[in-house]
Amino acid sequence: LSSSSYGVLRSRRSRPVVVVKAEAINPEIRKSEEKVVDSVVVTELSKPVTAYCRCWRSRAFPLCDGTHVKHNKATGDNVGPLVLKKQ
Amino acid sequence: LSSSSYGVLRSRRSRPVVVVKAEAINPEIRKSEEKVVDSVVVTELSKPVTAYCRCWRSRAFPLCDGTHVKHNKATGDNVGPLVLKKQ
Ligand code: FES
Ligand code: FES
Repeated sequence: LSSSSYGVLRSRRSRPVVVVKAEAINPEIRKSEEKVVDSVVVTELSKPVTAYCRCWRSRAFPLCDGTHVKHNKATGDNVGPLVLKKQ
Repeated sequence: LSSSSYGVLRSRRSRPVVVVKAEAINPEIRKSEEKVVDSVVVTELSKPVTAYCRCWRSRAFPLCDGTHVKHNKATGDNVGPLVLKKQ
């Protein structure tokens, strides 16, 4: 081995192993539930337009409260709500 | 400095800095769009029950195709769809 390749080996050995793991996308909402599923009976929608959260950051979940804007800015993401319209 | 504390300092210096940053939750869907918003005119729903994806992993996005199960298993997450019911 040349001294430089040995250096690389030593360097690799002394570094901590960093494991990058797929992440949960919901850090906080209803974590006691095994799976968070919400149902909407569409005939019962009261307003002409209702936005439902898909970023898992809304304080009004399952409704969208606009927090996706903050999440997108902080992470470079591009998520937004599902908008239900009565017509 | 004792040799052991020096070792710690040298070890700290030679490690790469690991920055843990808030993560995007949508790795792939419609990344050319600044914000992915979908609208559903509820009177146009064809089926009695339709599930919409909130995990950003569905191959049928904005519809749910069940991939949230795989995501939950891989990450320990607990996300699921928004289910629209006609009645
Ligand atoms: S607050 Fe989550 S999509 Fe708007
Ligand atoms: S596939 Fe995304 S919620 Fe079901």
